[in-house]
Amino acid sequence: MKVSDRIILLQETLKNEHIDYYMIPTSDFHNSEYVSGYFKIREYFSGFTGSNGTLVISHDHAGLWTDGRYFVQAQKELEGSGIELFCMFEKGVLSIKEYLEQNMDDGEVLGFDGRVVTASYALNLEKALCNKNIKFKYDMDIAGGLWEKRPAIPASPIMILSEEICGQNVGEKLTLIREEMKKHQCSAHLLTKLDDLMWLFNIRGKDIECNPVAFSYGYITMTDAYLFVQKQAVSDDLKQYADKWKITLNDYDEIEEFLENVTVQGRILMDEKSVNCRLYGIVKDSAKIINAPNPSEKLKAIKNPVELEHMEKVYLKDSVAVTRFIYWLKKNIGKTPLNEYSASMHMDELRREIDGFLDLSFPTIGAYKENAAMMHYEATEAVNKELKPEGMFLVDSGGQYMGGTTDVTRTIVLGEISDIIKKHFTAVAVGMLRLSDAKFLYGCTGRNLDILARGPVWDMGIDYKCGTGHGIGYILNVHEGPQNIRWRYAEDAKEAVIEEGMVMSNEPGVYKEGSHGIRIENVIVAKNSEKNDDGQFMHFDTLTYVPIDLDGIDISVMQPKDIERLNDYHKKVYDKVSSYLNDEERDWLREVTRMIGASDKL
Amino acid sequence: MKVSDRIILLQETLKNEHIDYYMIPTSDFHNSEYVSGYFKIREYFSGFTGSNGTLVISHDHAGLWTDGRYFVQAQKELEGSGIELFCMFEKGVLSIKEYLEQNMDDGEVLGFDGRVVTASYALNLEKALCNKNIKFKYDMDIAGGLWEKRPAIPASPIMILSEEICGQNVGEKLTLIREEMKKHQCSAHLLTKLDDLMWLFNIRGKDIECNPVAFSYGYITMTDAYLFVQKQAVSDDLKQYADKWKITLNDYDEIEEFLENVTVQGRILMDEKSVNCRLYGIVKDSAKIINAPNPSEKLKAIKNPVELEHMEKVYLKDSVAVTRFIYWLKKNIGKTPLNEYSASMHMDELRREIDGFLDLSFPTIGAYKENAAMMHYEATEAVNKELKPEGMFLVDSGGQYMGGTTDVTRTIVLGEISDIIKKHFTAVAVGMLRLSDAKFLYGCTGRNLDILARGPVWDMGIDYKCGTGHGIGYILNVHEGPQNIRWRYAEDAKEAVIEEGMVMSNEPGVYKEGSHGIRIENVIVAKNSEKNDDGQFMHFDTLTYVPIDLDGIDISVMQPKDIERLNDYHKKVYDKVSSYLNDEERDWLREVTRMIGASDKL
Repeated sequence: MKVSDRIILLQETLKNEHIDYYMIPTSDFHNSEYVSGYFKIREYFSGFTGSNGTLVISHDHAGLWTDGRYFVQAQKELEGSGIELFCMFEKGVLSIKEYLEQNMDDGEVLGFDGRVVTASYALNLEKALCNKNIKFKYDMDIAGGLWEKRPAIPASPIMILSEEICGQNVGEKLTLIREEMKKHQCSAHLLTKLDDLMWLFNIRGKDIECNPVAFSYGYITMTDAYLFVQKQAVSDDLKQYADKWKITLNDYDEIEEFLENVTVQGRILMDEKSVNCRLYGIVKDSAKIINAPNPSEKLKAIKNPVELEHMEKVYLKDSVAVTRFIYWLKKNIGKTPLNEYSASMHMDELRREIDGFLDLSFPTIGAYKENAAMMHYEATEAVNKELKPEGMFLVDSGGQYMGGTTDVTRTIVLGEISDIIKKHFTAVAVGMLRLSDAKFLYGCTGRNLDILARGPVWDMGIDYKCGTGHGIGYILNVHEGPQNIRWRYAEDAKEAVIEEGMVMSNEPGVYKEGSHGIRIENVIVAKNSEKNDDGQFMHFDTLTYVPIDLDGIDISVMQPKDIERLNDYHKKVYDKVSSYLNDEERDWLREVTRMIGASDKL
Repeated sequence: MKVSDRIILLQETLKNEHIDYYMIPTSDFHNSEYVSGYFKIREYFSGFTGSNGTLVISHDHAGLWTDGRYFVQAQKELEGSGIELFCMFEKGVLSIKEYLEQNMDDGEVLGFDGRVVTASYALNLEKALCNKNIKFKYDMDIAGGLWEKRPAIPASPIMILSEEICGQNVGEKLTLIREEMKKHQCSAHLLTKLDDLMWLFNIRGKDIECNPVAFSYGYITMTDAYLFVQKQAVSDDLKQYADKWKITLNDYDEIEEFLENVTVQGRILMDEKSVNCRLYGIVKDSAKIINAPNPSEKLKAIKNPVELEHMEKVYLKDSVAVTRFIYWLKKNIGKTPLNEYSASMHMDELRREIDGFLDLSFPTIGAYKENAAMMHYEATEAVNKELKPEGMFLVDSGGQYMGGTTDVTRTIVLGEISDIIKKHFTAVAVGMLRLSDAKFLYGCTGRNLDILARGPVWDMGIDYKCGTGHGIGYILNVHEGPQNIRWRYAEDAKEAVIEEGMVMSNEPGVYKEGSHGIRIENVIVAKNSEKNDDGQFMHFDTLTYVPIDLDGIDISVMQPKDIERLNDYHKKVYDKVSSYLNDEERDWLREVTRMIGASDKL
């Protein structure tokens, strides 16, 4: 069935159900950023494959909202579907809320599956539409019911991580959570965010592609801890582990029933930004809800020394693989037939060989020439571009290892590139290195620092329509909060102060639709520098050590300090990586990490 | 009477009045930043002369809270008073709110004069203390009643500005205000902020030193405008002017009575951050209050083309005076006896000679050597430091002219300075020039940009404990909102997006207690650059053209781009200023604005 036919079928069902507008976000019961097949309803009804997007369907219209990473891709994928694209956050483009405010008539009905919409989103929408007497119907998964051959919810076996890997056992972590609950004067805490649950219980799953999480819920009191997981995911080891730590294992499907019957003594802590509105609805009548970020969010973001030690090792191995990939690509380009997909597969193979490899941390982005202008492009075996000894190939990739999650991007020059592209490349490299070299006072958020990376790109009258960096999980999701590096925030967004031990990506870029895309991404970790009367100074250490392609550098537009930063970085790359390479690779690495000077012609 | 005796007297009165804690902020009925003599009660009871500070007195304790600009000065001035200094915003130092929360006992009484405390401050305090059943008593000026020989409230004649000077008449401005009132669905607007009132009615006063404002209130409806001013301030011209624009003139003292009797049709707009709690209390029972910034705040901050044209001219004249001052100082140092005070007086004289001069925009800060570490130091004829041909002299000064308000700081090298001081000086100059040269997207606030100026100072492990820049009025207060350039904000502070036409200071610094202080300050105005698919880019134009002392520059720590920025700036200084100088001064200016290169020894 074509996408347009699926929409017509849905519209007919909506009419029968007396629903005027129906909203299909991209989410699961846990507000996960990436979702497993069962939850890809928006993709089924729109054909748009990006990781973020919301479809709103009325009886005679369908609109898709997505963010700057996907404008180009969505435009392509929506062709012929009849769906109107709404470019989120662009000037003059209605938000979903504004669209509904302007288009819904008094007394109409808005439908959605309440399990895949967060409480805060629904409450917000309710407020915005309150003047219009809009009815919300969210107890049915209407779109899901029309999906033929819908995949099942995955239930992979749950893995238990050792204390040697985690640095803290679940008992210690529960103590920290309970301390935070006390600060909020709460006696209970409902935790539904999957990566927070994995972190807290020192377990991992495989239920979402590239995200080592298991579908689960948690309910914590001052004395007890309940973990709700799928029956099929539970091994004897997990039962013993739960016994040891006095964790009650319940069935995943029983969470609603449990919440209906449990008696909360006092107040319950939950994050309305991640708890879905079905669960929120159950709890709100029986207990006083304290809406605050999950305490685990910040605790998880601040990596402990054991985690950081493992990450350093893992990042080095990962850097070696990416370095070897670049060597392989540079050597074979123009000689062996290569395309975006086959090259990406080779990158994945090199990574799979690494000791402790578990999975990719996201599907590798291998994008050639103008395809790299799509920030989250993914080539397939069927549709991809042949690589030639010209232009640039952007590879954004990462792995899940027993010891850390990686994320790295290099843009590799395959042959001739124009002077203007070199200037773009150089600005991106300079920005990335300036942010890595930042010195700042404790108290800064990503908003204070973003311009260090973005400035060189802004100076050319260019912007990249995304943040400069995101937090990175530990054997967990490649995107995590609360910290990030952006220059602007949604009105109600809380900005997180950068704390020692927080790990972030640093990935400025230039994206020119139809022409080229450049992104250079290292991962950095915040560390304390000196403390004096003026405060606690901080800096970043770098975890990623992969050469930055000197073929893309126009030294004439660099300041000596920027050249020094690049040389210093390359010296470290050589020092750390070279011993893991064969002679041929090492000779090459020596050449591509050579010191450059103002007098060099590159 | 000594300060300590004044406090004892006040404490006795508090006991008699059954008040346990009494708060004396530094404010007037309009929450003005600077206050005229009548309102300097905090100074009378503490001896601390800084422009910001709050005294809290209980039966057995007195504490003074002030901000980073004044820590050094306050410590000095409080000596022997028995008053404890609380350094605001420093780690581990209680805020006033926290202090009261921790120290006040259940059921105690907190007193203050409700006319000098804003509604938002009082509401906030009420919330914080609500668990303790604290009673607020704010209908009496108890401290004021004990003040012997208290000065009167000034009432200088009100001046009317021409349309040629303002670029917009009061009718046009009222239309803009009423449009904003409509957006808030308000039919009335109570305006109590003095500079906003001056801007709106195109009038000026002289009631606060250096701030050309008249004590006044405004009440605007969709059809009427009421201006409350002191009888003695009203001339026949003002009466005619009011008639012409259909403005009803009322007596300043009648505002409370007026508000008690007026009937608000619907909702009233007022800024709880500037309306005092006495007036708030009168209005709140009779009308629905919409709390939002005064519409005039942003309208006033965005200078119109006529204002900007006048400012450019005025800033050039002002720059010439400062340049001539530097020449004079450099020529006479070591030859003529000079001290901080006499040198500052000479600066003021040069400014007074300028066509259109009305007043200083703040008392000139002339601070030598370690005195410059006090950000707002003011030398007096009695207490000052002799200038010698060594170290540095910081001069921060500005004027009120018919055509603009200026603010400029230069730190002038009088002789030998250490290498480390040169590095500090250079970092400050580099930071100031980098911020002036920023290119950024519309949507940025000062928080995004602050690090451009502060970064070079942070790189040395040093911070300056104040913002980098503040908005500047037009023939008005030298500090105005809503925009500013800071790296962090109070929790509830709104950050203003930088709009084309906003004028700001750019004044990074280094302050080393007991050693030296450096500040270099230009005034900049935000302008639109190119607009493209990525958004509206912006940049700053500079209004100030005064040489930056090359004797303080260590070129070895500058990047070529920073040297280029300094050279470009100095070329413009020479081109703009030289024709207003005599031959001797011009020869000197040519020398001190000479291009410098990496090979130069300075």
